[in-house]
Amino acid sequence: MPPVRAMQLEVGDLDEQGMVLRAPLAANVNDKGCAFGGSLAGLMTLAAWAHASAILDARGFGDAEVYVQDSQVRYLLPLYADLEARAWLNPEQNWTDFVRAFAERGRARARLNAEIRCPDGRVAAAFEGRFVALRPDG
Amino acid sequence: MPPVRAMQLEVGDLDEQGMVLRAPLAANVNDKGCAFGGSLAGLMTLAAWAHASAILDARGFGDAEVYVQDSQVRYLLPLYADLEARAWLNPEQNWTDFVRAFAERGRARARLNAEIRCPDGRVAAAFEGRFVALRPDG
Repeated sequence: MPPVRAMQLEVGDLDEQGMVLRAPLAANVNDKGCAFGGSLAGLMTLAAWAHASAILDARGFGDAEVYVQDSQVRYLLPLYADLEARAWLNPEQNWTDFVRAFAERGRARARLNAEIRCPDGRVAAAFEGRFVALRPDG
Repeated sequence: MPPVRAMQLEVGDLDEQGMVLRAPLAANVNDKGCAFGGSLAGLMTLAAWAHASAILDARGFGDAEVYVQDSQVRYLLPLYADLEARAWLNPEQNWTDFVRAFAERGRARARLNAEIRCPDGRVAAAFEGRFVALRPDG
């Protein structure tokens, strides 16, 4: 995906706390010297998408196709540092039910959150999105 | 902005019906052969941002700094064609008030909508976002 390549993103950790993706500021800077909003939104979307995909992959469903259905992004503060997006499953949901639904019906939905923080810990951008995973033949 | 450059976007018309930005599918394709969600969201965000910026520029406020504050995107259909985003001012608002607020207070807010359609006219992705314009010293 050419715009993703241009973002120079790097995959960080995946653990029970969520999924981390990183991208250098230099490749994602806007005309004001801070992170480009499209890169903030894109990195959070990809982190959430990658998180759901990785969960399915780890359960043996590596061929699942995961799509974003809708998303909301809030841009709270300018970010003058490298981008690090962390995505996690919305606390009202759980991965066990998600994986079971996919295994049983070939279709599962999940709501994920993501954030990018400034170096001082304040939230620069916040994301919430709904995703659906489908069997490739679904 | 490197990710924007990678999208290869092209500025279309600006008229009373809104602002159009285009980008070729080949530069914005995902692993499934359709348009990458990040490019859809990014192009709509940029079209809306460019629309508000162009309105201010045409009124003599070319130094205004326009920021996106929040946005919602719905991904409705896969798009297997070049991307064309059209952005327009939310019908509950008007540009006259927006420009007047900016001239008087150096700060103005606007809500904009945007869409990308499939070649058959159905909506592939829909955007709504809030923007703020500030004086550069504001």
